[in-house]
Amino acid sequence: MPEVIRDLVEKVLAGDRRAIARAISAVEDRDPVAVPLLKELFSRAGRALVVGITGSPGAGKSTLVEKLAREYRGKGARVGIVAVDPTSPFSGGAILGDRVRMQGLANDAGVYIRSMATRGQLGGLAPTTHDAVTILDAAGCEVVLIETVGVGQDEVEVARLADVTVLLLVPGMGDDIQTFKAGVMEIADLYVVNKADRPGADRIEQEVTAMLSLNSRPDGWRPPVVKTVATTGQGIGELCQALDQFRTFSERGDVRESRRKEHWRSRLLELLRQTLLERVVARQLRDGALDRQLDDLLSHKRDPYSVVEGIIAGFMARNGSRQS
Amino acid sequence: MPEVIRDLVEKVLAGDRRAIARAISAVEDRDPVAVPLLKELFSRAGRALVVGITGSPGAGKSTLVEKLAREYRGKGARVGIVAVDPTSPFSGGAILGDRVRMQGLANDAGVYIRSMATRGQLGGLAPTTHDAVTILDAAGCEVVLIETVGVGQDEVEVARLADVTVLLLVPGMGDDIQTFKAGVMEIADLYVVNKADRPGADRIEQEVTAMLSLNSRPDGWRPPVVKTVATTGQGIGELCQALDQFRTFSERGDVRESRRKEHWRSRLLELLRQTLLERVVARQLRDGALDRQLDDLLSHKRDPYSVVEGIIAGFMARNGSRQS
Repeated sequence: MPEVIRDLVEKVLAGDRRAIARAISAVEDRDPVAVPLLKELFSRAGRALVVGITGSPGAGKSTLVEKLAREYRGKGARVGIVAVDPTSPFSGGAILGDRVRMQGLANDAGVYIRSMATRGQLGGLAPTTHDAVTILDAAGCEVVLIETVGVGQDEVEVARLADVTVLLLVPGMGDDIQTFKAGVMEIADLYVVNKADRPGADRIEQEVTAMLSLNSRPDGWRPPVVKTVATTGQGIGELCQALDQFRTFSERGDVRESRRKEHWRSRLLELLRQTLLERVVARQLRDGALDRQLDDLLSHKRDPYSVVEGIIAGFMARNGSRQS
Repeated sequence: MPEVIRDLVEKVLAGDRRAIARAISAVEDRDPVAVPLLKELFSRAGRALVVGITGSPGAGKSTLVEKLAREYRGKGARVGIVAVDPTSPFSGGAILGDRVRMQGLANDAGVYIRSMATRGQLGGLAPTTHDAVTILDAAGCEVVLIETVGVGQDEVEVARLADVTVLLLVPGMGDDIQTFKAGVMEIADLYVVNKADRPGADRIEQEVTAMLSLNSRPDGWRPPVVKTVATTGQGIGELCQALDQFRTFSERGDVRESRRKEHWRSRLLELLRQTLLERVVARQLRDGALDRQLDDLLSHKRDPYSVVEGIIAGFMARNGSRQS
């Protein structure tokens, strides 16, 4: 292992914040050091509780995450926070503001906060976030909180990599349950009615409870509904307790195990697909080779299926002869 | 080539409707005959004008598509229609109703209508739709109309495989432009304000025109806005003319060529990725081999990057030695 990677690995394992930042940046940038680094760190990861926290913009996710982080800090745990930003030109400002507010935690050496942009991630958001969690986990964070806006396939995938997923709802956004029902509602293990001091909190709690009573989960878990006022810290203790209960539940049965297995199955196949394509492109489609194939397609001289077979055959022959 | 495929190819090329239906079903079901069939048909395709028609539910897409088909039929062209159905339990009924209405065309041997479901398509909707277009094109359709609901990545991709994309807007859905702006608005080559006899048609036309005046396209095309009342046929002639104008424009410059090239680039890479993964999974990850790898990952004995490298190395070695 090169000196530079060994050095970075050691510093990450020691919880060095600048090293953690560098490691996550390497993953985001697909720097060549990323893969050897992750290989080393992976064997040291797997202990953290990964909590996904999702909800509409304005639901108070950042404030809740901050308070939850403080609660875990009070118990002596080290905490990692990955805040997934939809880098839209419209919402950029507001989210930046949230981050700045969260910086109240920034002076605590036991908390590591990282924002990740959803746009421009080669190969998708989920793999990058997952690698960031591996790094924080290896760096000794007992809890990793992933904050996402609860819309879009990307965010659903990120939620899936969590051991436990929390959905934030707030009174006065009457359409929330309707909107979320499609995809996000069913992946939540815990519901939080935040801003519970506002009118309508009881109604939304009842709606969620009613909805949950209609759908029993195959694993037998009955998702609790916790009311919080994140700004004052009210209900954060109860939320922590509920998270502990789910953790105990999921570790006792095979819920956590089977969930992680499903997650790894799709992650591994995606990584395999991505890696295979990269290698074939690098070896068979360089120097305008792809454009020549495209010209054949456009003139309908060759069909796409034959072109793909030809590319794969060329790749196999070349590598086969190299290896044998 | 097996007799059964040769027979099917000949019948499709002759425009036999049952053969076309069988060919498209083979693609949807990923039947083994699909690939050899498409290989044969591909060399005979590439002449059809592919028109993507998109818009919100209730915008009148099916009626417009039907009238447009009649207009082209009046000019002697053969017409293929691919209606992409979001198979949601909620909207299923309404859409089925539209199809039934469109069956007014069903007695015309010069029109081929096919519904395709968005859900449950292995490998995504876009490839399947694309193959259906190849079949209709080879079967002699001079025009292929693809109707999609203008939401979701899938539909945007389908729109991209069209030579020209039409976006339907209707008065009284004030938020339409706002909603579409993000992704669909910018891919439209032509705008239709349908139900133009309703109040608000002029306002929506002005809004679109204003929006278009702010964003000039790199190819220099200025998308026209056509007002129609699809139920009465009003404006359908003008829409046809506008489509012809875009066709002339795009064939004169390299717009059509470069658009098809971009489309094929992503389609070819996707097909390559899919095919590679299928072969590796079939040869290296059978009989519980994937599960054993997952167990190693879950216990953090091995990291995902090393696992993927191992799978690829095994695949290459096995195939290399077979070929050399």
